[in-house]
Amino acid sequence: MRAILKPDAAPGLSLADVPRPDIGPNEVLIRVRRAGICGTDLHIFHWDEWSRGRIQPPLVLGHEFMGEVTEVGGLVENVGAGDRVSAEGHLVCGHCELCRTGNSHVCPETQIIGVDRDGAFADFVAIPATNIIPIPGSISDDHAALFDPLGNAFHTVLHSEVAGRVVAIVGCGPIGLFAVGIARAAGAATVIAIEPHEDRRELAARMGAHLCLDPGSGDVETAIADLTRGYGADVVCEMSGHPDGVRTAFRICRNGGHVRLLGLPKGSVEVDLARDVIFKGLHVYGVIGRRMYDTWIEMRNFLAAGLLDIEPVITHRLPIERFEEGIAAMEEGEAAKVVLSLD
Amino acid sequence: MRAILKPDAAPGLSLADVPRPDIGPNEVLIRVRRAGICGTDLHIFHWDEWSRGRIQPPLVLGHEFMGEVTEVGGLVENVGAGDRVSAEGHLVCGHCELCRTGNSHVCPETQIIGVDRDGAFADFVAIPATNIIPIPGSISDDHAALFDPLGNAFHTVLHSEVAGRVVAIVGCGPIGLFAVGIARAAGAATVIAIEPHEDRRELAARMGAHLCLDPGSGDVETAIADLTRGYGADVVCEMSGHPDGVRTAFRICRNGGHVRLLGLPKGSVEVDLARDVIFKGLHVYGVIGRRMYDTWIEMRNFLAAGLLDIEPVITHRLPIERFEEGIAAMEEGEAAKVVLSLD
Amino acid sequence: MRAILKPDAAPGLSLADVPRPDIGPNEVLIRVRRAGICGTDLHIFHWDEWSRGRIQPPLVLGHEFMGEVTEVGGLVENVGAGDRVSAEGHLVCGHCELCRTGNSHVCPETQIIGVDRDGAFADFVAIPATNIIPIPGSISDDHAALFDPLGNAFHTVLHSEVAGRVVAIVGCGPIGLFAVGIARAAGAATVIAIEPHEDRRELAARMGAHLCLDPGSGDVETAIADLTRGYGADVVCEMSGHPDGVRTAFRICRNGGHVRLLGLPKGSVEVDLARDVIFKGLHVYGVIGRRMYDTWIEMRNFLAAGLLDIEPVITHRLPIERFEEGIAAMEEGEAAKVVLSLD
Amino acid sequence: MRAILKPDAAPGLSLADVPRPDIGPNEVLIRVRRAGICGTDLHIFHWDEWSRGRIQPPLVLGHEFMGEVTEVGGLVENVGAGDRVSAEGHLVCGHCELCRTGNSHVCPETQIIGVDRDGAFADFVAIPATNIIPIPGSISDDHAALFDPLGNAFHTVLHSEVAGRVVAIVGCGPIGLFAVGIARAAGAATVIAIEPHEDRRELAARMGAHLCLDPGSGDVETAIADLTRGYGADVVCEMSGHPDGVRTAFRICRNGGHVRLLGLPKGSVEVDLARDVIFKGLHVYGVIGRRMYDTWIEMRNFLAAGLLDIEPVITHRLPIERFEEGIAAMEEGEAAKVVLSLD
Repeated sequence: MRAILKPDAAPGLSLADVPRPDIGPNEVLIRVRRAGICGTDLHIFHWDEWSRGRIQPPLVLGHEFMGEVTEVGGLVENVGAGDRVSAEGHLVCGHCELCRTGNSHVCPETQIIGVDRDGAFADFVAIPATNIIPIPGSISDDHAALFDPLGNAFHTVLHSEVAGRVVAIVGCGPIGLFAVGIARAAGAATVIAIEPHEDRRELAARMGAHLCLDPGSGDVETAIADLTRGYGADVVCEMSGHPDGVRTAFRICRNGGHVRLLGLPKGSVEVDLARDVIFKGLHVYGVIGRRMYDTWIEMRNFLAAGLLDIEPVITHRLPIERFEEGIAAMEEGEAAKVVLSLD
Repeated sequence: MRAILKPDAAPGLSLADVPRPDIGPNEVLIRVRRAGICGTDLHIFHWDEWSRGRIQPPLVLGHEFMGEVTEVGGLVENVGAGDRVSAEGHLVCGHCELCRTGNSHVCPETQIIGVDRDGAFADFVAIPATNIIPIPGSISDDHAALFDPLGNAFHTVLHSEVAGRVVAIVGCGPIGLFAVGIARAAGAATVIAIEPHEDRRELAARMGAHLCLDPGSGDVETAIADLTRGYGADVVCEMSGHPDGVRTAFRICRNGGHVRLLGLPKGSVEVDLARDVIFKGLHVYGVIGRRMYDTWIEMRNFLAAGLLDIEPVITHRLPIERFEEGIAAMEEGEAAKVVLSLD
Repeated sequence: MRAILKPDAAPGLSLADVPRPDIGPNEVLIRVRRAGICGTDLHIFHWDEWSRGRIQPPLVLGHEFMGEVTEVGGLVENVGAGDRVSAEGHLVCGHCELCRTGNSHVCPETQIIGVDRDGAFADFVAIPATNIIPIPGSISDDHAALFDPLGNAFHTVLHSEVAGRVVAIVGCGPIGLFAVGIARAAGAATVIAIEPHEDRRELAARMGAHLCLDPGSGDVETAIADLTRGYGADVVCEMSGHPDGVRTAFRICRNGGHVRLLGLPKGSVEVDLARDVIFKGLHVYGVIGRRMYDTWIEMRNFLAAGLLDIEPVITHRLPIERFEEGIAAMEEGEAAKVVLSLD
Repeated sequence: MRAILKPDAAPGLSLADVPRPDIGPNEVLIRVRRAGICGTDLHIFHWDEWSRGRIQPPLVLGHEFMGEVTEVGGLVENVGAGDRVSAEGHLVCGHCELCRTGNSHVCPETQIIGVDRDGAFADFVAIPATNIIPIPGSISDDHAALFDPLGNAFHTVLHSEVAGRVVAIVGCGPIGLFAVGIARAAGAATVIAIEPHEDRRELAARMGAHLCLDPGSGDVETAIADLTRGYGADVVCEMSGHPDGVRTAFRICRNGGHVRLLGLPKGSVEVDLARDVIFKGLHVYGVIGRRMYDTWIEMRNFLAAGLLDIEPVITHRLPIERFEEGIAAMEEGEAAKVVLSLD
């Protein structure tokens, strides 16, 4: 079968022919139809420091996807051949204390498809039946393929109440853009997007941001104070991973407010914890993955009810053979989300 | 009346004779009987950078105290002369959006007695009636005088569930020592105290710590991993304010666990947010003051029910005239909590 | 001044001339411009059993209103003459343990304006400054006059998360109609209104209900099971106060779901607690009044942001002199909400 | 193997010889060592109305137990032969929306061992590996055998914060007695037991109740009001299932407090919802089973840390052959908890 492969421990990826995976009795085989390219895939492409420490080639990449079930293991009850599905790509142990208390998203034994084992940039992928999510008919293939990053955004935005609140999104990559739309759909009174790139600010506006601020031109903190009678934003979602973004997130949050950190800074960040977290009485939450499976059900409900349209975030659609064009578009900042087709 | 005064903008304090304060129609006059010396008082004594930026001499110091009401303003209904009381020393506006939604502890207009207006190291202090807390008969004067720092510890420890959990306290000054006792009283399964000074570790053991670790000798992180089947502590209370303490707090907390920051670092702290907060899915809470007045009622209930004995934390008792001995004992690390008597 | 008065212990009300109220140093005098008629006012009009046990004539009625501040007491800081305001009509003691822990809405000393002391169906009303809520310019007089019942609906609907959920509203009087709109604005995936009267179902549809069910024709429970893949509604708001409505609320709620009871049944209700509450693991919440003042701030934010339009609920507007027409329209089921004008 | 069997659709039970169960690839076979008799077993013994509607003889009874793993299915990873274990006896589907969002305890597909399929009053029982709970060495066989009803009590008491609170337990059967001990261990300031039988009140006192009230002699409501400065209990756990117990639970709870219903009333109960739930702003929670597996981990932590001693609740220990003596002791009210031995 076709697969986008990291063939060996060096930069680059190749479209290769690899064997179709086998499935165990609790697993499911999926014929992949659509897959999204993630920033993580770019790290692996470039064979950066993180990749060198974690990835064991040869490896099939890809963790954002949807497709059709073609085969189920002998003990599988909840999924059948022909089902149209997406899947949680974090494979967890299921029996540690975290998994047993609703915290699978931080299971220490987590393995990620496309990172720790073969992934979904391939004609077929094998997934444990526990991780399968059926897709309602009203949700398109392209949108269902993005449940993984969209779920990151849902996990972040809905971690505490946003209805009637002022929500600020710091950094408008694909997940930040999703977050803007989710905050609007969940009844935020005001959604503020903070993003240096003009085209991303335009996409944020299309996703429903009431106000788009460029941190490079003018004082974001003052602008938000003015808008909020001096209080600051009730909820701030940090999605840039930039040290300045992190510090801005803490600064623009109101006393007693909520900051959620999703963007991943490289290395340590200097934070004035006394002034910006302790004296302000902030609640800070580190967001990793998606709640299993609360986030997935919320996401499905929002999309199936038509509360949210993620279409503006998909800027490129390409057949799998042209994946390198997608990578290039992302690197040049032209693309928000690139969806690959494997039909 | 007698008062410990910062007479002018320079190091030092003096016992002075100052006029008795007047009270407004919504205020109460209290004859102070006991008062505790706080680290904040030492900063003002030394006239450090923070003090120089905030304190306006002449100022009567002191914010930890108890006494007897001697006079009430004309509109006061809930307090009467003769009542034995303590008081919340953070005076808040009462009508901002934070005050109106149960977040008075982070009211932007907060004024602190002994910092922003005359305090309780004096024979009399004037306090708004809203801030007065009656003291049950079963709680001693000395203990009631410490409701302010004890309330910091209650606010920190009880912010989320500790019953049956592993709780680690980083830094065993007076508030850390209180926290050890509160965690035990609230049903923590294991309480771990982390503290470099041996005599503080001994006090922590007397307050009920199951395990006292010296960060200077041996690997705290490994010791806690061993004790917790590799998971880490469920709840970590950072009470040292030291950058290493903060980083330790994040490192020893289990995935999905709770870190509360109370100790105030000077300046910025470098934190590896990706590794230590985001990938771990931590909940972090900045603790300032006491919840008004949930914390006060919890604290009263615990002490009145005899769930907690804070006596070991009081190492020195002195008449107000000998306050400088108390300050010296604190600076030399001999004292945990010093209680001044004004009888 | 003009006032709608219960002159003595007998059925009926009269428009009377009464003295303008005096204000204390912590109070505010408001020139009333608009006021809403509540079902409670009808009970007092008819002098029913409840009224006979509680009301002490002579009494000025009315607790839903807005107006302009004309005078403030000497100690009032947060309100000024000329301010356009509404007010919380539940006057609480402010110093009991419930008031001190964010539960003023259940203060045992609560006094209600228009019930326990003179109310707002008058040219002027005196209110404690703590209870005053400023009205943003974008909210009309008529809508601001309804903050009291609208706040009941906000308190009910937003008690737990509704974004992406199935929300059922049992009973579509004015508060139920508000609840439909609030659930939509807060991102509910599906809003189901259950109401026997056709015109109310039409109003519910105008407020945004996806589905309006008539309990008199067909099986509500089955209809909701069909719509929810057999699970039932995630959140059910009982606003009819009818015993059948209460039982329906429990029956249509999914296992582990949330039922909030706002409608007031007369006397006891038979509930199969084992089958309908315990085996289902339900969360039930009794809703009284509005959270002080979280609900008020949420409500202001929703209306000011244009998330919700309550206009369809106002079916009648009358000058105060014609209040009896309003009462008649309510009794005949013609009116949803009647707003009186006192300009 | 030996088993306590309901052989056919009629009153009575018999000790029979039945085949050892087979296990599937995701299951575990356990050699049972200890088992507790539950009130449910008595219902089945008597073949009451509920039993006739649900039980399909022949059936091996028993759902409270512990033992040693003797065999594991081919796909089982988290359990091994020789492990000392207890198990959750509610077998859930694992893939419905409730199971996937941490609400397995209300899975509509729940099957209970000893009720819907063969149970643990037998030398061997087959259980899905997901349901297995390892037992720490410090917890005795007898105590580990009671994790099922003890877990009901943990689920009830720890549903919301009890540290520093007044907790009332209505009904002191075994689960009520456990609840008394748990509330004490979790730092309740005052624990009040309400129970008509003197010997049960004595056991409640041994479990740590500060106050034991007999509802038959004196006014429970007034006694609790006196003890709580008129407020009522913060948390009330209803464990009698008696209609009067239920009504008492609502009456003695403070405004804004928490009532948890665990005891199962037969048929409908009349409740004055307006007066006792809505005007009081109560939070009511229906308790069924144990949270999977938060409750189990909490319970293990409490017992392993020695926070709680359940020994007083075990009044009878009998070999399996004498199970009818155990049933008789329970029926005559002589027994609290009866533990059967199968060594």
